[in-house]
Amino acid sequence: MGKGGLGSRRGGIGARSLDELCINTIRMLSVDAVEKANSGHPGLPMEAADLAYVLWNKFLRHNPSNPCWPNRDRFILSAGHGSMLLYGLLYLTGYDLPLREIKRFRQWKSLTPGHPEYVLTSGVEMTTGLLGQGFATGVGMAIAAEYLAHYFSRPDFNLLDHNIYGIVSDGDLMEGLSYEAASLAGHFNLGRIIYIYLDNRISIDGPTALTFTEDIRRRFEAQNWHVQNVDGYQLEDIARAVEQAKEERKKPSLIIARTHIGYGSPNKQDSADAHGAPLGKEEVRLTKKNLGWPEDKCFYVPRAVLRQLRRSKKRGERPEAEWNSVFERYSKEYPDMAQLWEQMMKGSFPDTWKDALPEFLPADSPMSTRYASGEVLSFIAPKIFSLIGGSADLGTSIKTYIPSLGDFDKDRGGRNIHFGVREHVMGAIFNGLALSKLIPFGGTFLIFSDYMKPAIRMAAMMGLRVIYVFSHDSIGVGEDGPTHQPVEQLVDLRSIPNLTVIRPADANETVHAWRMALENAAGPTALILTRQRLPIIDRKRYAEARGLGRGGYIVADPEEGPPEIVIIGTGSELHPALDAHEALKAEGIRSRVVSLASWEIFMSQSKAYRDHVLPPRIKARLAIEAGSPLGWRSFVGLEGEIISMESFGHSAPQDVLFEKFGFSTGNVVTKAKELLDKQDK
Amino acid sequence: MGKGGLGSRRGGIGARSLDELCINTIRMLSVDAVEKANSGHPGLPMEAADLAYVLWNKFLRHNPSNPCWPNRDRFILSAGHGSMLLYGLLYLTGYDLPLREIKRFRQWKSLTPGHPEYVLTSGVEMTTGLLGQGFATGVGMAIAAEYLAHYFSRPDFNLLDHNIYGIVSDGDLMEGLSYEAASLAGHFNLGRIIYIYLDNRISIDGPTALTFTEDIRRRFEAQNWHVQNVDGYQLEDIARAVEQAKEERKKPSLIIARTHIGYGSPNKQDSADAHGAPLGKEEVRLTKKNLGWPEDKCFYVPRAVLRQLRRSKKRGERPEAEWNSVFERYSKEYPDMAQLWEQMMKGSFPDTWKDALPEFLPADSPMSTRYASGEVLSFIAPKIFSLIGGSADLGTSIKTYIPSLGDFDKDRGGRNIHFGVREHVMGAIFNGLALSKLIPFGGTFLIFSDYMKPAIRMAAMMGLRVIYVFSHDSIGVGEDGPTHQPVEQLVDLRSIPNLTVIRPADANETVHAWRMALENAAGPTALILTRQRLPIIDRKRYAEARGLGRGGYIVADPEEGPPEIVIIGTGSELHPALDAHEALKAEGIRSRVVSLASWEIFMSQSKAYRDHVLPPRIKARLAIEAGSPLGWRSFVGLEGEIISMESFGHSAPQDVLFEKFGFSTGNVVTKAKELLDKQDK
Repeated sequence: MGKGGLGSRRGGIGARSLDELCINTIRMLSVDAVEKANSGHPGLPMEAADLAYVLWNKFLRHNPSNPCWPNRDRFILSAGHGSMLLYGLLYLTGYDLPLREIKRFRQWKSLTPGHPEYVLTSGVEMTTGLLGQGFATGVGMAIAAEYLAHYFSRPDFNLLDHNIYGIVSDGDLMEGLSYEAASLAGHFNLGRIIYIYLDNRISIDGPTALTFTEDIRRRFEAQNWHVQNVDGYQLEDIARAVEQAKEERKKPSLIIARTHIGYGSPNKQDSADAHGAPLGKEEVRLTKKNLGWPEDKCFYVPRAVLRQLRRSKKRGERPEAEWNSVFERYSKEYPDMAQLWEQMMKGSFPDTWKDALPEFLPADSPMSTRYASGEVLSFIAPKIFSLIGGSADLGTSIKTYIPSLGDFDKDRGGRNIHFGVREHVMGAIFNGLALSKLIPFGGTFLIFSDYMKPAIRMAAMMGLRVIYVFSHDSIGVGEDGPTHQPVEQLVDLRSIPNLTVIRPADANETVHAWRMALENAAGPTALILTRQRLPIIDRKRYAEARGLGRGGYIVADPEEGPPEIVIIGTGSELHPALDAHEALKAEGIRSRVVSLASWEIFMSQSKAYRDHVLPPRIKARLAIEAGSPLGWRSFVGLEGEIISMESFGHSAPQDVLFEKFGFSTGNVVTKAKELLDKQDK
Repeated sequence: MGKGGLGSRRGGIGARSLDELCINTIRMLSVDAVEKANSGHPGLPMEAADLAYVLWNKFLRHNPSNPCWPNRDRFILSAGHGSMLLYGLLYLTGYDLPLREIKRFRQWKSLTPGHPEYVLTSGVEMTTGLLGQGFATGVGMAIAAEYLAHYFSRPDFNLLDHNIYGIVSDGDLMEGLSYEAASLAGHFNLGRIIYIYLDNRISIDGPTALTFTEDIRRRFEAQNWHVQNVDGYQLEDIARAVEQAKEERKKPSLIIARTHIGYGSPNKQDSADAHGAPLGKEEVRLTKKNLGWPEDKCFYVPRAVLRQLRRSKKRGERPEAEWNSVFERYSKEYPDMAQLWEQMMKGSFPDTWKDALPEFLPADSPMSTRYASGEVLSFIAPKIFSLIGGSADLGTSIKTYIPSLGDFDKDRGGRNIHFGVREHVMGAIFNGLALSKLIPFGGTFLIFSDYMKPAIRMAAMMGLRVIYVFSHDSIGVGEDGPTHQPVEQLVDLRSIPNLTVIRPADANETVHAWRMALENAAGPTALILTRQRLPIIDRKRYAEARGLGRGGYIVADPEEGPPEIVIIGTGSELHPALDAHEALKAEGIRSRVVSLASWEIFMSQSKAYRDHVLPPRIKARLAIEAGSPLGWRSFVGLEGEIISMESFGHSAPQDVLFEKFGFSTGNVVTKAKELLDKQDK
């Protein structure tokens, strides 16, 4: 499979090996697509075509006719800007991606967006483009494979033996996220991971030597990886390295491939110019000439190439068919496990978890919502096998650690994952687990959600069912002070499209919040929980907690007559709201109290319901939440008032802080009256 | 200076060495303070007292009487939860921190908050507590020292030869941020950095072996660090290691100190129990007994200890006095440099930068605001020496790279820093530069601000003048698609207390935005810029761009009569707003157009001004911004309308996207009319 020297001019197309033809087809499809779109990244596909060809043609076990076959190898293009490499491979190997879509690269509603998008394009395992995310998410996929193999595989029934392949760039490796991910992958001995690093020595602003001089081999070896070096254009060497990486089952593998960005372009190879812009008409011509490609043809696919690569389709059907027959026998021998498997693949789980969910009584007060969350979780996790989770070294504090479920480690069946103090990779691993049909849960203190924000956004964008548990949700953190006290984090989470945020006000709302999170299969849910203990609302006296299902609901109303004022609270601030309601009542003022635990769910209700809860005629509306005021005017309008945090917090006992920052019943009463006085004028 | 075996019981207080007495004083002050506060972290101060003592008593060149002396060594407690260690040292060595404040540990408005806070407590070099931030910010301080030394030091005038010391924990080293920081510190040969890593092998959820098994020595060596191992209780060995670290000028140093969390506590040493909660009354007693400390005394400081450690005051005065006399001679020999120095130390700079700031004419259209920003920067940077900046491998794209200023590298005078694809450490380094009296600027694409959010928050909390340059600010990113298109990032930045966000609408607003950013000394400013080119507003026809100074201003008004509707835009969306204004005018509809580039500045104006711009009587208000709608109701109320992004974006050319998502003039006109119709009803 050898090849001529780098960029050397060789004879006509007929004289080339089929391998070379295939590789140049992948390369030139990308060049032509970027050129037509007049935007995109030709450098990476040109550079990595050889590597990708070896991987896809020789190793990747996949079935283009069924991209969802559970035991397929995963391929992650972590350097998502090279998307055309992936689209070219998907088209050439026979996925449901016609050439006309490649001609519509980066156009409105095409199947070939600038960066690969999960769901949109069949065969794309995850959305990539934010550097480091693909690298890290693959670690989650590998954990999921180990976990599922542990439970489902049996002697003679090796249901899950796939690998996680990836192509990663220097940008991926510079991001802190990749170090966190590599550290955990090495620690967990995730031998399924085989990443090829494109060592092209070029970054956007110049040579990587400007800033990236660490010893990659040593770094990965320090993290317990198996590391090899290859020339990215010696097909046999590449194949040998991948073979060895596959054989190494105890360590994740990094193959450092010396490559050349824009390979084949006479004037742009090895230059940042090849990275993120079309080569330009003349350079395209020169490149084609240089590679012995027909200069006058665009999107040219030699028939022999298509024949060669479309063999993947046939080749992919065989292992899947074999797997299916194994699974059929398995179903007979282990019918319960098979049923569980099939349920899980559909993203569902036994309905029994809902039976007898815990219910808390006022007598159980005071109880933090993090504690209540832990109680619910201990109750449901044993019933829902796909729940697997953990925390960034705060499991005992945020109450996600469930001792009876064991630790994921050498014991691949453990369901508590210790992430260490690595929030970002935790978020990415959650995504990898969810992409593997599991339902990850877990988190950290709300303040540290900042560290994992990009991964949360990815979950929302991919529509993954991830359940974030964020506790210590306000100045209620107390003495740890402003560095640890969330202020803007709540609105930041609310601002992410397709993320559902729920901030329950007591233990029973927490039960419902968990129910809602589990039932939300269309995207992630964040549960926002208190550190501090709270009363449990007397539901005989006030409305039932299941009202939370609509995002916001009336908790208390005047005994007679219409309310004069609406007081809206969430989480711990619902309590001063309720206390104020009582105090106002004693003064003959009629108030309504609304728990608005989830803005997203409330806003998805009918206008009639929303107007029922927040009647347009009542302008006197007072919101109380120990977070940023941003967004609250959507509910209280310009005439209402907001008791909120306009600054960072302080270090002091939490009861002092709530008092000082105005979250006391007294201040709610005062503000309510001021509002009513203003209305009267 | 040797010591007995670990935790061994020894004779009465008199029999001990003075070193040991000092160390135990530091240790027990922490224990007592945490106990009294009934909250806090005793484990770290108990563990690290020996190391800190050696550092502070033998190496740290500082002057407790003048914590701001420019050539002092910096000490960063990256593991900020161990704050009592630092407070104890500050009190004992004679900083302005009386014992009574230590007795008020973690109380409302005390000088001893849960985590060290910059400005609040003299001698605290930076706010720490978010893991990884201290480690990374120190890299910025080291860069600043090199940069300043390059310009100000002269043969015989070594004005800046201080070191950056730090104490870091496993949590710091697990965070991806610390890898990014270590990579750059090694790359830049920042030999001034000397960090001691507390290798206690305990994390909150259990032994670090649960998750943190990488080879620390190898990892740091891979990143070009000088690494040593010591026993954290062998004073002479510690001193020798620090000495060697000081001698190593080409590499940053990591001293891996084997330590024991909660050292001295008979039942809690080496256990996570010692980490984040008071030892408890009985265990405090047992600890005191174990360490030969008077069991009945609380906050006990032996006189000999105070005498010994207060010598720091005297000892610190000497180097400062010497430095002052050197500086006096320097001032005579290099008066211009001395003047520049003094100006810089006051945080000011020559006023000349304002002279002849560029002005752009409509004929220069179209021009992206990132391009305009680059023009302004090229203009002012040469005039303001303290401006130093860079980008996370996007300098050429976001236009922060100024070739004439050179690169910071072996050339310590270069003013362009290449951060590589490492947004988070870039943010932290900005903070370190700002803490060293420089004015850092730079950034990345707005979407990647997510990766650096925690560092931005730190800048805001510390009130640092950092100027973020975030370009590619909306779906205007175009073909790169949803992974790269900001939606919620604008509101996320706006939600951070004390961060000023400015989104200029054209080249001339960009000039003023830069002016405002430079003049904002009380906190960071984020400039939000477009990728795409925009018209330059004809200021003869519309209001002048300097109106931006008030955050929001009237750009266009009806020629006659009061406006019926107010259209509010920011950035690129001001243009469809203005076009709609003209279209409406043609139909006889009187509209006002407001540029609301900075919410924070606008909200800080008088109510009279705000009501002048947005008259309360006009309910027909239409906001247009290609970002999340969150927060806009503060300006348009419940009766207004918002044209915004309610979902993630798409991959397509940007003009298609603006059209499809409703940011066209046509849609603004339609929505404006609908709003007016609704009002009429």
